[in-house]
Amino acid sequence: MRDMVEIGMGKAARRGFHLDEVALVPTRRTRDVNEVSTAWQLDAYRFDIPCVAHPSDATMSPDSAVALGRAGGLGVLNAEGLWTRYEDPIPVLHELSQLDEEAAATRRLQQMYAEPIRPELIGERVKQIRDAGVTVAVRVSPQHTLQLAPVILDAGIDILVVQGTIVSAEHVSTTDEPLNLKEFIADLDLPVIAGGCTNYQTALHLMRTGAAGVIVGVGADDFSTTDTVLGIRVPMATAISDAAAARRDYLDETGGRYVHLIADGGLGTSGDIAKALGCGADAVMLGEPLTLATDAPAGGAWWHSAASHPKLPRGMFSPAGEQLGTLEEVLYGPSDDPEGAMNLFGGLRRAMAKCGYSDLKEFQRVNLILDR
Amino acid sequence: MRDMVEIGMGKAARRGFHLDEVALVPTRRTRDVNEVSTAWQLDAYRFDIPCVAHPSDATMSPDSAVALGRAGGLGVLNAEGLWTRYEDPIPVLHELSQLDEEAAATRRLQQMYAEPIRPELIGERVKQIRDAGVTVAVRVSPQHTLQLAPVILDAGIDILVVQGTIVSAEHVSTTDEPLNLKEFIADLDLPVIAGGCTNYQTALHLMRTGAAGVIVGVGADDFSTTDTVLGIRVPMATAISDAAAARRDYLDETGGRYVHLIADGGLGTSGDIAKALGCGADAVMLGEPLTLATDAPAGGAWWHSAASHPKLPRGMFSPAGEQLGTLEEVLYGPSDDPEGAMNLFGGLRRAMAKCGYSDLKEFQRVNLILDR
Amino acid sequence: MRDMVEIGMGKAARRGFHLDEVALVPTRRTRDVNEVSTAWQLDAYRFDIPCVAHPSDATMSPDSAVALGRAGGLGVLNAEGLWTRYEDPIPVLHELSQLDEEAAATRRLQQMYAEPIRPELIGERVKQIRDAGVTVAVRVSPQHTLQLAPVILDAGIDILVVQGTIVSAEHVSTTDEPLNLKEFIADLDLPVIAGGCTNYQTALHLMRTGAAGVIVGVGADDFSTTDTVLGIRVPMATAISDAAAARRDYLDETGGRYVHLIADGGLGTSGDIAKALGCGADAVMLGEPLTLATDAPAGGAWWHSAASHPKLPRGMFSPAGEQLGTLEEVLYGPSDDPEGAMNLFGGLRRAMAKCGYSDLKEFQRVNLILDR
Amino acid sequence: MRDMVEIGMGKAARRGFHLDEVALVPTRRTRDVNEVSTAWQLDAYRFDIPCVAHPSDATMSPDSAVALGRAGGLGVLNAEGLWTRYEDPIPVLHELSQLDEEAAATRRLQQMYAEPIRPELIGERVKQIRDAGVTVAVRVSPQHTLQLAPVILDAGIDILVVQGTIVSAEHVSTTDEPLNLKEFIADLDLPVIAGGCTNYQTALHLMRTGAAGVIVGVGADDFSTTDTVLGIRVPMATAISDAAAARRDYLDETGGRYVHLIADGGLGTSGDIAKALGCGADAVMLGEPLTLATDAPAGGAWWHSAASHPKLPRGMFSPAGEQLGTLEEVLYGPSDDPEGAMNLFGGLRRAMAKCGYSDLKEFQRVNLILDR
Repeated sequence: MRDMVEIGMGKAARRGFHLDEVALVPTRRTRDVNEVSTAWQLDAYRFDIPCVAHPSDATMSPDSAVALGRAGGLGVLNAEGLWTRYEDPIPVLHELSQLDEEAAATRRLQQMYAEPIRPELIGERVKQIRDAGVTVAVRVSPQHTLQLAPVILDAGIDILVVQGTIVSAEHVSTTDEPLNLKEFIADLDLPVIAGGCTNYQTALHLMRTGAAGVIVGVGADDFSTTDTVLGIRVPMATAISDAAAARRDYLDETGGRYVHLIADGGLGTSGDIAKALGCGADAVMLGEPLTLATDAPAGGAWWHSAASHPKLPRGMFSPAGEQLGTLEEVLYGPSDDPEGAMNLFGGLRRAMAKCGYSDLKEFQRVNLILDR
Repeated sequence: MRDMVEIGMGKAARRGFHLDEVALVPTRRTRDVNEVSTAWQLDAYRFDIPCVAHPSDATMSPDSAVALGRAGGLGVLNAEGLWTRYEDPIPVLHELSQLDEEAAATRRLQQMYAEPIRPELIGERVKQIRDAGVTVAVRVSPQHTLQLAPVILDAGIDILVVQGTIVSAEHVSTTDEPLNLKEFIADLDLPVIAGGCTNYQTALHLMRTGAAGVIVGVGADDFSTTDTVLGIRVPMATAISDAAAARRDYLDETGGRYVHLIADGGLGTSGDIAKALGCGADAVMLGEPLTLATDAPAGGAWWHSAASHPKLPRGMFSPAGEQLGTLEEVLYGPSDDPEGAMNLFGGLRRAMAKCGYSDLKEFQRVNLILDR
Repeated sequence: MRDMVEIGMGKAARRGFHLDEVALVPTRRTRDVNEVSTAWQLDAYRFDIPCVAHPSDATMSPDSAVALGRAGGLGVLNAEGLWTRYEDPIPVLHELSQLDEEAAATRRLQQMYAEPIRPELIGERVKQIRDAGVTVAVRVSPQHTLQLAPVILDAGIDILVVQGTIVSAEHVSTTDEPLNLKEFIADLDLPVIAGGCTNYQTALHLMRTGAAGVIVGVGADDFSTTDTVLGIRVPMATAISDAAAARRDYLDETGGRYVHLIADGGLGTSGDIAKALGCGADAVMLGEPLTLATDAPAGGAWWHSAASHPKLPRGMFSPAGEQLGTLEEVLYGPSDDPEGAMNLFGGLRRAMAKCGYSDLKEFQRVNLILDR
Repeated sequence: MRDMVEIGMGKAARRGFHLDEVALVPTRRTRDVNEVSTAWQLDAYRFDIPCVAHPSDATMSPDSAVALGRAGGLGVLNAEGLWTRYEDPIPVLHELSQLDEEAAATRRLQQMYAEPIRPELIGERVKQIRDAGVTVAVRVSPQHTLQLAPVILDAGIDILVVQGTIVSAEHVSTTDEPLNLKEFIADLDLPVIAGGCTNYQTALHLMRTGAAGVIVGVGADDFSTTDTVLGIRVPMATAISDAAAARRDYLDETGGRYVHLIADGGLGTSGDIAKALGCGADAVMLGEPLTLATDAPAGGAWWHSAASHPKLPRGMFSPAGEQLGTLEEVLYGPSDDPEGAMNLFGGLRRAMAKCGYSDLKEFQRVNLILDR
């Protein structure tokens, strides 16, 4: 079904496509923008916009998780970030907002994240978000899930996000007890989002663990170096479409369980968001785009979690630059930025209207054109 | 018939090509340049060159519409531009000709276009063009057609241009009365040009509304951001060829109604114009290239209509740069610019001659070669 | 046989490849460089290297035509260049060697070439070359062939080069008497090289005129703007291969007439030359690469003939830069330039040796690999 | 089996792919990094990491060959480099570490390498490495193998590397006695590594000479100009896969002789190394990446052997830049460089773990995805 290309004698590869290689094709119908809905629902939780925050300290503090929740999206706090390592991370975030030299930045990040996690802080942070009345989601890495999940769950959250660069349903380890996601999820009574993954097979197996949502992609943007360090690069248009096929097949094999796909990677503008959804995603995970808001925790600086790895950093530090407006303006406008970085979901809504669709599920069927 | 490419499992896309990916292939015959005609005719109106102005305030004032008409092309005034918002737009245009900072420029454009349209000015502007004895064409957006068309038609125009970024034959709205193009055109006794559109199906439906001309493309050039904001990008060589197929099929289904295709997007040089016509267009719509004339209304500055959108701007402001010569010289030379931005239609004529064709209709059959 | 690609519904294009998209594939045999011959022969004239000069004033004066002939190549003087317009072109060439501003440069070129051709100078220039004892070749444009050929032939040349950007075997004109190449060549008793052409059909028809050599390509390099001005761009690997097919078919239809192919375009380094020959060319026409010699007529400045067109210039002026060595060193080394611009034919020889071939005719069969 | 593309009528080419066009696809399984082995074995010699040094004076002195051997890789000293031309090459290397002007650098390299080889120095250098207790490998060019091999072998080495840009099993020469690799190797009782080669056929014939290892590629990196000078460019993903097919076919035809493939070219980061092994290589040959170590012989400057060719240099001199850490850190980390140039084999190990493989032989089967 997919193009197989002979790389050499006896070695074939599938052809993958990036979001910027495809574009939306309007239909013969157009709509008013106010005829369009961008709402979606994960388990019992309904959101006005298909926007999940990438759980980075650069975008998500307890305050900004609340702000995003109030604005109609889903904030996600990192249980292994600065907010659970420092009683008061404000001075650290302030220093990061002032940092500008890249080489030293990596070393400084490594030092900051060398501080141990203090489990008691997790409850405090969660309480702050929960008290604000928004949906509470917390991220934990697969490596630390068995250790930290009890604390996180005790804190009273709504959604658990088990996220690493690459997460599989079957992790092999002989030294530590490996996380068995399927058993872990079966024991919980709250929805779990798990990922990232990059292909049909892994997505399908993650769905079979009982996850309510699966993250597609490795969160790669211009500042990620997963490709140069690990040789793993994810053409997102293909990864999302493949995972959508897994969602359909899993829906069939379970007689109706719909797992939501959250696209994480290569998303900078409202046009990118529209394309990811047009390829079949149910929502997008945004990192760097949210740092353009004036209320971003580190003043606009951006780095991936993997950028602070003590032995093998896999992301570049992006110093704080000009900020465009409030989080509300970044999401809903009005925009005075002509390049699609503001009014992200107003742009999505207009794209859907111009193409003639009225809701996200229909919009997943939009035609695409592929160009160079 | 067209290459379908599997983007992922269960999601295919058609492959589209841009004008700069194709080139003309000469035949085994060559001609003298003076054996070549570039004339075309829309309804009762005949033009020496297949040049329609993009209805932007940056290119079209009443004066420059007259100048283009006298030079053999078709000027188009925007009924929703500065000339119908300001009694005297000269100071505004002068300010734009001096503007150089991009970010502030968007905000300033938004302010300028926040001024309401004064319908009484439409008649005044039209009269000025009509009195000069050239073909009078005025552009209105689909959203404002029902409201402004009576005033525009009363003013005594020859051709009405109903143009938005994406225009369909079937607009859905529950709050406003949507424009039914087919009924609207049936009631008129003057030719209508409608568009833009991006594919076969929409082009065919626009032809079925009774339009005399259909605009293909969304007017995208280096300063347009339709792609990054909306995810809609139009490979023009493909869009034009597809619309030419719709023209041929519509000609067949109507037993002889020939609808003219006007290509709008990606056209900067005489070579680009030749390629658009070689792909099947009957004429080209030029925006930014005409701002290189010394008599351009805003002194060479350039912006798209969508660049001033109050909530979602979709185009960058290009400050005035060096201007190359008079409008006459930009169209017919002599040129001292080696990069194809002057003597646009002398260049077209020479391309046709080198390839061995003597008129535009024949030239639509020129062979193309595709490269990287 | 060739990939046809659907550009749009009802419009297909052939896929063309540039020289920089292909590379040579060595065989399982290698050779010593001194086992390799780069010689070729056109009619009665034998050359050590497959190097024909592009007849530009930037590369060819009577002196440099002699120098190239002595070095084993074929110099070609332009009968319509500065040497036949000015009694003493040295001051003009000197001015060009000092020129550095591009926009003004085009205007200045247009002025210089506005000077009329003085036929009596043709004989003088030819005599100077002939007296030096090398093969004498002169270029004339198709437009001026009927008028200038008698003078040129009287001057006593060995090879006539009838060259324009695009030359066909069938030129249509109603105002002037068009050149009928076939009749013209039949009346001559010296070999004619004609071109450029860009495809199989035109190449075959040029061969049928009786030409001894056919130029493939339009001489396009980084400074040519044939593409942006006329929309004609020639992927040279494809153009050469197609013309080589025409050569083979013509050889068959005539029972043994072998027409030489001279590739003109996209050739900057010894690697490019090797690829052009590997695609099937018998020789290459070099322009800009020869201006890197210290004895280049305009001190290293470079421009195409079409760059001085009075109404539609189609090439940029490249100011004189650093020069690498004598013409002998540019052709044969020793080189101290690591980027392949010196020792052009030593590089070719080594490429042939590394790939295991011993003469040019065999080398045309070398395998190619295509990459991005 | 492979895509053949028509370049033109009658000239086809195979499509080749570079390492940066492919990426690794994880499986549905992941592993702990400490479950992964990167060990390999060539003949009787076992190595912790699949790292062979490119035998350049910029990376390999006797000291650094020892350091690499102790770190688990294989150092290779060039028998025709500065260490065998100068009694004391330290001042020369120091000068190279200070050199910054490129054009003059090529001339200076040519002068330095004009110094004749002093065979007696070979024994001295080898002794120094052997005395340190690591595996001793020395490189000689095919041209000088017959002359220098006796001296090299007498010195007591473990592995002989016969390496030129392009090496074939069948070299044709009428002036010198050509090296017959098969006879030469048959007479030796130590393993020989031979290459580079670029395709299946040449790789297979090199295997049939009895070589224990075959080098695939011409060592091309950003500083190599083999492509521009010779027209030979090697898409490494294809070259490695093809050679892996030759290895498999040779294994079959010999009933079990496994020849190791060492990829040489296009390798700058841990991600590149992972991809080369994923395409089928058994080990990689590293040049420029090793110059980033603080103990690199020329302080971080980098040049290819061919860069000093007296008549046809084929590589650019890269002046010394910032160095990242010790050789140990470059190979094993910890890294504070986010772009994959440090902790090269820690990065490889993590890539293998994320993709779910536990040793190099299994990892050769990893799935690939091809993108633009």
